[in-house]
Amino acid sequence: MTTDLMARRARLLGPNMPTFYDEPVHIVKGEGVWLWDADGRKYLDCYNNVPHVGHCHPHVVEAIAKQAATLNTHTRYLHDGILDYAERLTKTLGHDISQMIMVCTGSEANDIALRMAQAVTGKTGFIATDNTYHGNTATVSQLSTRRPPIGGYAGNIKLVPAPDSVRPVGGDLAGQAQAFADHVAAAIAELEAAGHGFAGMMLCPSFANEGFPALEPGFLDPTIAAIRAAGGLVLCDEVQPGFGRLGSHFWGHDWQGFAPDVVTVGKPMANGHPVAATLTRPDIMAAFRNAFGYFNTFGGNPVSCAAALATLDVIEQDNLQANALTTGHYALERMRKIKHPLKAEARGRGLFFGIEFVMHDGRPATEFAAQVVEGMRKGGVLMNRIGRNMNTLKMRPPMPFKTEHADLAMDLLEQVLADTPL
Amino acid sequence: MTTDLMARRARLLGPNMPTFYDEPVHIVKGEGVWLWDADGRKYLDCYNNVPHVGHCHPHVVEAIAKQAATLNTHTRYLHDGILDYAERLTKTLGHDISQMIMVCTGSEANDIALRMAQAVTGKTGFIATDNTYHGNTATVSQLSTRRPPIGGYAGNIKLVPAPDSVRPVGGDLAGQAQAFADHVAAAIAELEAAGHGFAGMMLCPSFANEGFPALEPGFLDPTIAAIRAAGGLVLCDEVQPGFGRLGSHFWGHDWQGFAPDVVTVGKPMANGHPVAATLTRPDIMAAFRNAFGYFNTFGGNPVSCAAALATLDVIEQDNLQANALTTGHYALERMRKIKHPLKAEARGRGLFFGIEFVMHDGRPATEFAAQVVEGMRKGGVLMNRIGRNMNTLKMRPPMPFKTEHADLAMDLLEQVLADTPL
Repeated sequence: MTTDLMARRARLLGPNMPTFYDEPVHIVKGEGVWLWDADGRKYLDCYNNVPHVGHCHPHVVEAIAKQAATLNTHTRYLHDGILDYAERLTKTLGHDISQMIMVCTGSEANDIALRMAQAVTGKTGFIATDNTYHGNTATVSQLSTRRPPIGGYAGNIKLVPAPDSVRPVGGDLAGQAQAFADHVAAAIAELEAAGHGFAGMMLCPSFANEGFPALEPGFLDPTIAAIRAAGGLVLCDEVQPGFGRLGSHFWGHDWQGFAPDVVTVGKPMANGHPVAATLTRPDIMAAFRNAFGYFNTFGGNPVSCAAALATLDVIEQDNLQANALTTGHYALERMRKIKHPLKAEARGRGLFFGIEFVMHDGRPATEFAAQVVEGMRKGGVLMNRIGRNMNTLKMRPPMPFKTEHADLAMDLLEQVLADTPL
Repeated sequence: MTTDLMARRARLLGPNMPTFYDEPVHIVKGEGVWLWDADGRKYLDCYNNVPHVGHCHPHVVEAIAKQAATLNTHTRYLHDGILDYAERLTKTLGHDISQMIMVCTGSEANDIALRMAQAVTGKTGFIATDNTYHGNTATVSQLSTRRPPIGGYAGNIKLVPAPDSVRPVGGDLAGQAQAFADHVAAAIAELEAAGHGFAGMMLCPSFANEGFPALEPGFLDPTIAAIRAAGGLVLCDEVQPGFGRLGSHFWGHDWQGFAPDVVTVGKPMANGHPVAATLTRPDIMAAFRNAFGYFNTFGGNPVSCAAALATLDVIEQDNLQANALTTGHYALERMRKIKHPLKAEARGRGLFFGIEFVMHDGRPATEFAAQVVEGMRKGGVLMNRIGRNMNTLKMRPPMPFKTEHADLAMDLLEQVLADTPL
């Protein structure tokens, strides 16, 4: 069955379609933090952040079904849905971020964020870290260190070394915040010397794709100061840390303690319905909307807004941010107690946590981490790994994840770690 | 109420958010070819192609509701939905176009199409017409003649004069196909001389945004020959003509009679659910997937596939392509009989039709067409205008549009034309 599906995928979707696991999982049903495969096997979902309030949450499903049966048009007609949502979402944001463009994917949201910085500054140069991912449009994908674009890398993008709590930028943890900011300042100088000028830096405040390094609030202060001093914009990609996942704060930048100019949101925003948004201050929105004509046919349609509103309802009604704090603390404590010869660091914040493994000779334990992920899948827990060397386990479950689920995952993890050859 | 909503929009969404009509419509309910505003007023929808099989079609709504309640994940797990859809959709396409990438918007689909051409040719130069629209990403939006991007236009994009059945390229209708192709050949030569090389041309086979000029099948033959001779790809944007709208054929390129290398689809594909796709031959897909890492979180999720499958069901079960042919013929005949001093041409194909108006001195009757659109709206029929000078009425209703709906629209149009001052 799985073999047949893989053959059909190759035939209909082409090569290099990414899948998870040596033997990909054929999922047919979801509910809360649980997934079921075609053979009826149940998995604990410790990976998926898109079904933020839980797979197939009935409140969100009902909102989608009800609105889809009533009306689904676009924002060239007036509708309350997008306004109600914009009002409610911007209330969670400070720093005068009070306006929104609604789109369909985080990639589209970041594609707009880059143009907002261009519109405000009149410059075209951008900075990102050297192990990030902000999306898949032709423009945004150039911020990610994947394969070079046809015609070569654009000169207007500079990548700086990503923060790391095991191998810190500059060599020591105490100096990492300043060392990171120094790289950013140097990149700004290069962009200006090359004639591109500096439009802004795009960053995830929890550096999720970089391997969610253990950083303190304020880590980004020197970097933000360098960006501001150069007149650039801080483009804050909240696709992963946002909507309460970090537990202590609703937004990653609030945890870090800085004021972004533009905030982008996506994946968890409507529990899997294709919805994303770019949020900013009125002055920046006006600059963008005066510099570029922009309309998104599906963006902000009534069904998408109903799904996004219902997702906010559940986050609030079920106290999911508080749950992320409690369960995240509990899971981190359990991970800290795990003893393993290759364990370099257990870290995390809220419902985004994992363990980094390093070989005795200092090399990243990439293959070992891969085997642990496969072992967990065999044991009925879905998770994955992340970071520059893919040697860090990544757990980022739906937000209704409770301590009993953490226990189940950690019990299995202890067993898999004991069973996996070094 | 409408004034309040406009004020809320300005406050929450910023300036320059496009709306239709002098007094924008506040739509709250849709069914079939009908829309209702907040005051309970009923409108005949002669504009919206996104609700392809009719607003809130129960079969599509049920498919969305059922799948949303069962599972909504991503293509890194295996699922039948995307494979069933790819199989079914590619069966409607010839020319060995048998593989698909599913995304969320037509913009994303076209953003991929451009990179496919780059991956195959190793070149970066593109051609489009000078009055088109293919999407809103930073890259794709450069194909559209809107405001210049920050840092100026990219040198790798050349625009050629759009075909026109009232003011033909080259001056006479008989020579327009060759004149258009000559402009394309000249643009190819410019791209090659400038060092960009020629990757491909993106075009809508019905030139919908250009004003859907009255063209014969085979019009594009000399152009396709010029593209092929230069080794470029034909990127065929079927977002508007596709899925049977033209009546005579399921795809615009089948009506024109050429073989595209890449086909993109979007808006009507899932009746308003945010779904789009890029379809191509296996050799091109392999070149793209080997040159670029690409994954789209929401693209091809089970709910999107269920919505797209259900939309195909209705197109087939309700014979909507045949209906587009019949009703389109009927509407065109009625438009041809309309007598008006400013009428330059009634034209259309299937359920995409309208009338172009020109002043006595030869200038486009832009303001007159605008007043007609407003008059129709006041009379309860929603439509709009299109073309370089926005002097052509554009009717592009949902596909269940019947002759009685055409009669209603045409009866009102005759009255509005009589009542609108020249």
